[in-house]
Amino acid sequence: MNVTVDGRIQHYRTVAFDARKNSVLLIEQRLLPHQFKIVAMPDFRATARAIREMIVRGAGAIGATAAYGLAQGARAFRGNDLGKFSTYVESVQQTLAAARPTAVDPLNALRALRAAMRAGETVAEQQALALAAAEEFAHDDVRHCQAIGRHGLKLIRSNSRILTHCNAGWLAFVDVGTATAPLYAAQQAGKKFHVFCDETRPRCQGATLTAWELAQQKISHQIIADNAAGHLMQRGEIDLVIVGSDRTLGRTGEVANKIGTYTKAVLAQRHGIPFYVAIPLSTIDWNLRAGAEIPIEERSGDEVLGAWGARPGAKGKPGIYIRVANPSSGARNPGFDVTPPELITGIITPEGIFPPEQLWKNRARLGWTRSAVDKNGTCAGRK
Amino acid sequence: MNVTVDGRIQHYRTVAFDARKNSVLLIEQRLLPHQFKIVAMPDFRATARAIREMIVRGAGAIGATAAYGLAQGARAFRGNDLGKFSTYVESVQQTLAAARPTAVDPLNALRALRAAMRAGETVAEQQALALAAAEEFAHDDVRHCQAIGRHGLKLIRSNSRILTHCNAGWLAFVDVGTATAPLYAAQQAGKKFHVFCDETRPRCQGATLTAWELAQQKISHQIIADNAAGHLMQRGEIDLVIVGSDRTLGRTGEVANKIGTYTKAVLAQRHGIPFYVAIPLSTIDWNLRAGAEIPIEERSGDEVLGAWGARPGAKGKPGIYIRVANPSSGARNPGFDVTPPELITGIITPEGIFPPEQLWKNRARLGWTRSAVDKNGTCAGRK
Repeated sequence: MNVTVDGRIQHYRTVAFDARKNSVLLIEQRLLPHQFKIVAMPDFRATARAIREMIVRGAGAIGATAAYGLAQGARAFRGNDLGKFSTYVESVQQTLAAARPTAVDPLNALRALRAAMRAGETVAEQQALALAAAEEFAHDDVRHCQAIGRHGLKLIRSNSRILTHCNAGWLAFVDVGTATAPLYAAQQAGKKFHVFCDETRPRCQGATLTAWELAQQKISHQIIADNAAGHLMQRGEIDLVIVGSDRTLGRTGEVANKIGTYTKAVLAQRHGIPFYVAIPLSTIDWNLRAGAEIPIEERSGDEVLGAWGARPGAKGKPGIYIRVANPSSGARNPGFDVTPPELITGIITPEGIFPPEQLWKNRARLGWTRSAVDKNGTCAGRK
Repeated sequence: MNVTVDGRIQHYRTVAFDARKNSVLLIEQRLLPHQFKIVAMPDFRATARAIREMIVRGAGAIGATAAYGLAQGARAFRGNDLGKFSTYVESVQQTLAAARPTAVDPLNALRALRAAMRAGETVAEQQALALAAAEEFAHDDVRHCQAIGRHGLKLIRSNSRILTHCNAGWLAFVDVGTATAPLYAAQQAGKKFHVFCDETRPRCQGATLTAWELAQQKISHQIIADNAAGHLMQRGEIDLVIVGSDRTLGRTGEVANKIGTYTKAVLAQRHGIPFYVAIPLSTIDWNLRAGAEIPIEERSGDEVLGAWGARPGAKGKPGIYIRVANPSSGARNPGFDVTPPELITGIITPEGIFPPEQLWKNRARLGWTRSAVDKNGTCAGRK
């Protein structure tokens, strides 16, 4: 999507590959929203570190980063011995897979790449196939997000006021994003609308990442405290809610997403406001039979007890952490919650919009056989 | 209530008066929770400044501070001319009333003091009456909070897990507080319970003030992000909600309180969790006929876009402000919301617990004739 750099609007993807230098190019997301910087990962170990240290985060984005990382590693191999090459690629895969072990997308991406490479009969052929498969993985991610945008576009009326929660934007994918895709499509279609971004405590991905995206894209928006959405709904100032999802249960239509999502769904139902969830097919879990089975990660209390940010005027410097809360108090910090299907108007997928209860009936269209969401994974990996 | 200073537990009131030095003693609340400090206001102008600059905040606390400030000013007058004294006291009253012009409690307190002083026939008599009336105002505030505690005590069962929002604790009154009063009463009665404090963005009065109070009082508690309460209710981890109120409509039972209160009430109803509001009689508004008529203050966006706190290790230093959000984004920041009576189990008052719809029927007991809440005031003054 667009980023204004030195006064000029330029187009970037969250993850890209420089084939000549064999480098993975990433937006250094830890510096956002205070600084925009592209960093080049010179080898697969640096790429794995970028995933681990959250230079890049978000389901689709870390999937594509792992895919490019595997191609990068494979392309760095010198020699023709296919046996040695395979052993080496296996170790590259393990390094990349271990970077965010609970995340599902990198594992799926790495598996897909290895499968694609098997068609090659020489090291050089397999190296070329690895890059082609990585590019295809990234391209598919973008294409799916664009499809979500096309389907979601019709939900946005002229002068709609839309609430979002957390960041399921293009920074979390290769481009376009999921919950943001209908917004970007509506903008392209020339519609006027306004977005309220929940700040999304404790990590404030709404106030930092989503707001940054919308500002770069010149979409009218305001940040609100997570406490304020109920009041705005009560006063008739919100027409539509669109959020992302970390895991959606294909059998029940339950949606696990960033903590606070459930609260917004309860409020939306009370006020008769449509509540939509935008997802790529890769986040559908066809195994679990009840939302209560989803393990909810309890994260560090430090996130709740403080905040990250920049001193006003300290331009370009990385953020600092301050302690907001009483120093002698502790915190509970569940990272995700589960929204039941009766609160969800529809699930926006690349294949169309479905009532949550009808995912299972439509499983053939929705990638049921392709699903590889690990039954034991937590909702920790996507942020 | 209790504060541990240099390892020793001591008892403090939020507002006190040193008659010998003619000084108003206040807890410097802007330094909390990072530093505890008592400051002495040497004259009524300093006392007015303390109200204006929010060294002291909260309905009852600023009422008592204004009352002591008027007595302090009156007692500083030298001479016997009753006419000159009256003119002078009038100007003292105006200075104190202007410190937080939208707050109701200081106006009521100042009016009560002036009325009490009229019984005196000399300057000296009126000076003595002013101090006696200020002490009575402060004492009444404590007595009313203690009565709220006695009535609310029965709501707290053994091992109850209680959710609070914002700060309606002893720091907002002269002592004990309103929403906290049942907690302190339950502790005195030897009950075991656990409190979840909503951090209460954007100003985080829950994470800073309520958590500090509970820690000083050695009550088991944890801070949670405002986003987390819905999840905890869903998992059966909250048994009771108690909040305060900035303004309660005596005719309808609607409750205006810190932004986010309404959301918690909606969630509590969905989960069948009792939702109580603890109030002093002074915050009942007998005039307005609909919650929609309550003007909701829109506060500075900077509160939502950033956070105040201390660098870890920077012990005893005042907090700093950091910008959390995207620098080029703006914010909406409504300070309060209105909760309708159908979401409220009961209103805990010094006179007992009432269903919200029955305040009007019981208006004679609830101070209807004494009410002086200004019809045009906003919910800005109490924080």
